[in-house]
Amino acid sequence: MISVEEARTRILKHITSLPTISVPLSEAIGLVLARDVIAQENIPPFANSAMDGFALKSQDSRPHEGKPARLRIIGEVAAGYVAQQVVIPGTALRIMTGAPVPEGADTVIQVELTQSVSSSEPRTQEAQVDILSEVAPGNNIRLAGEDMQRGQTVLTAGTEIGPWEIGILATLGWATVPVIRRARVAILGTGDEIIDVDQPLQPGKIRNSNSYLIEAAVRRAGAEPIRLGVARDTLASLHEKFLQAVTCDLIITSGGVSVGDFDLVKQVLTEEGQMEFWRINMRPGKPVAFGHIGSVPLIGLPGNPVSTAVTFELFARPVIRKMQGQQRIIKPQAPVIVEQGIPDRASRRHYVRAHVEWQQGQLVAHPTGNQGSHIMTSLRNANALVIVPENGESIPPGGTAMAIMLDWPEVELAQ
Amino acid sequence: MISVEEARTRILKHITSLPTISVPLSEAIGLVLARDVIAQENIPPFANSAMDGFALKSQDSRPHEGKPARLRIIGEVAAGYVAQQVVIPGTALRIMTGAPVPEGADTVIQVELTQSVSSSEPRTQEAQVDILSEVAPGNNIRLAGEDMQRGQTVLTAGTEIGPWEIGILATLGWATVPVIRRARVAILGTGDEIIDVDQPLQPGKIRNSNSYLIEAAVRRAGAEPIRLGVARDTLASLHEKFLQAVTCDLIITSGGVSVGDFDLVKQVLTEEGQMEFWRINMRPGKPVAFGHIGSVPLIGLPGNPVSTAVTFELFARPVIRKMQGQQRIIKPQAPVIVEQGIPDRASRRHYVRAHVEWQQGQLVAHPTGNQGSHIMTSLRNANALVIVPENGESIPPGGTAMAIMLDWPEVELAQ
Repeated sequence: MISVEEARTRILKHITSLPTISVPLSEAIGLVLARDVIAQENIPPFANSAMDGFALKSQDSRPHEGKPARLRIIGEVAAGYVAQQVVIPGTALRIMTGAPVPEGADTVIQVELTQSVSSSEPRTQEAQVDILSEVAPGNNIRLAGEDMQRGQTVLTAGTEIGPWEIGILATLGWATVPVIRRARVAILGTGDEIIDVDQPLQPGKIRNSNSYLIEAAVRRAGAEPIRLGVARDTLASLHEKFLQAVTCDLIITSGGVSVGDFDLVKQVLTEEGQMEFWRINMRPGKPVAFGHIGSVPLIGLPGNPVSTAVTFELFARPVIRKMQGQQRIIKPQAPVIVEQGIPDRASRRHYVRAHVEWQQGQLVAHPTGNQGSHIMTSLRNANALVIVPENGESIPPGGTAMAIMLDWPEVELAQ
Repeated sequence: MISVEEARTRILKHITSLPTISVPLSEAIGLVLARDVIAQENIPPFANSAMDGFALKSQDSRPHEGKPARLRIIGEVAAGYVAQQVVIPGTALRIMTGAPVPEGADTVIQVELTQSVSSSEPRTQEAQVDILSEVAPGNNIRLAGEDMQRGQTVLTAGTEIGPWEIGILATLGWATVPVIRRARVAILGTGDEIIDVDQPLQPGKIRNSNSYLIEAAVRRAGAEPIRLGVARDTLASLHEKFLQAVTCDLIITSGGVSVGDFDLVKQVLTEEGQMEFWRINMRPGKPVAFGHIGSVPLIGLPGNPVSTAVTFELFARPVIRKMQGQQRIIKPQAPVIVEQGIPDRASRRHYVRAHVEWQQGQLVAHPTGNQGSHIMTSLRNANALVIVPENGESIPPGGTAMAIMLDWPEVELAQ
């Protein structure tokens, strides 16, 4: 038997990034930047006002003989426009947030610190404003290049593009973005006992849950799933499905990789590819296979649905993330308190499905019940896998164990 | 000014779940179950073998006069088939994992605990097998209904459908699933200074980052974004855009909701809808509006891109999640250590963008630099918002503060 870590290392050694493609900005979310993003312009492109108020010369804001400075309003400028007027001594220009600072002004005072002057003869007097506070040069002015400078590396290759990165790319004018493309993942179920989801049960048959679970998990990993259906336990059927599968970036099969007599999948995989069939020191999920059909990597997950679910998380998800250019490929672990303990007599490392939540500043784990590898309900409400080590010791009530946190963001694989 | 909590409460009070629709199982991921799922069948539907091995009567496994029991192999049954043979005393049926337990057998022994018997005269002797270990009744048998029983409520309405729930639904034959449908969210930018992402900069203009950032954030929240472009600062333009927007479930605008003279958005919103214009005790993001155009809720976010980003997270995202039937609608908070401290002299509550990571078992926060509300680079590498309370006290170096963890899963709003 090999350890989970050994299996994962062996698999990941064969996985490299997919090629770079260019996508419209709106389609880049969740993908990884393939190249550094270097600003071609200063952002902001021009000095602009941070407030609604008046642009003026700072020396004009000083009170005069104990009274507020009174300035002549020479016009106004809104965001999106450029003032034609020049602010000369004794004048001010009404300015809105985001508008470029007009020539001649070196500061902006917010409207709340001013008072309009009503004129007794509106037709002959020009509008005036009283400046109620002295302001220093540069007040309320956002300088050109204050955010990003021309030539600055703003985002680096390898960055996952989230909504906030999209905002930065839009600001810089990147209408299309170079990214590592999504993986296309073929999903193949095996077994004569499998019928499709919309079929009524017949004697001896069960429904195809693995293919749908894997399809959803692939989608959640950000890749594009292609469900190829179920290969029947005949050579012809398997060969035909594999012909389709090799047009993808990754093949995931479920079932057919353990020791039984009728595991034709194993036979075909051995003939058509270079495969290794492992027994991994883990429960659920001992039989896992890995290899290639031609140049396409293939991960063979066990047939038991809970084993499929757990081995996907431990092996397939990191493969997909690595293919898609991510640095952070595995889920983090955290120490959790298992209130009821876990009496465990298995010799293989046990990944116990559990619901973990914060209680008074600590992470507390509640296993989901019957942990049999065919018990789908053990997957309900499970956001973590509590690890019971392979030395055969149980976790006492109130004891601490490490848990894989399935809905926290990924972290880098420790080297 | 009103607090963030007050604004959020007022908004959410108006928000209810969207209607239920039926979707194919493959399209259900990330959506919320609209009805309880009750098993219509026992799962497993039939008692089946957990191992590859032999089905037999348990009393036939006892050694006989010191030698292993030797049984006559009467046939074999693979997963997906039903044995025609009956296991009578002295006989065993070869059985594969998942195959139904044949009539007459009450236990299964794994193949590793048996030994085939080679016959000297293969044509006349029937195949035989030696049973090397005594096994109790029920060994290696998965009972019918052991996972789910007919009539059992397996998943409850309100459950978010992840890959593992998809597996359970597939097992139960739910080819289509009743879910709360996705929200259609109209996105409208405002401002004459805004040009589109693929345009070269012109004097006084900046690019439309808000609409792309909001679009990506809406998509990440699981809703369907509809970008309506930028409404120019004219009544006609705004009216025309709102006509389109009211066909959606939610409208999000950016810009135009603060005190300035040229904020026609405010004028139109007041005329066409019932709107409230708030000043929220927060930085960035003080001016936020909320109301309805007809029956469609509208959230008016500030124009500054960082303010847009942060107010989306605090106000719009919980609205979308609540509309889509989620119970867990807000991001969790956790205590973080701010190594360098945050010297803060603002009177409004400050949401400092920071990168938080685990260091030796503690969460440590590193603010992202210049926190100006127009500084897009303050959004880089930010996975948390460190909260500096509104009492004006700073956070000393090494001090602890609460942080909103932006990439952890949501939690319920405390009542």
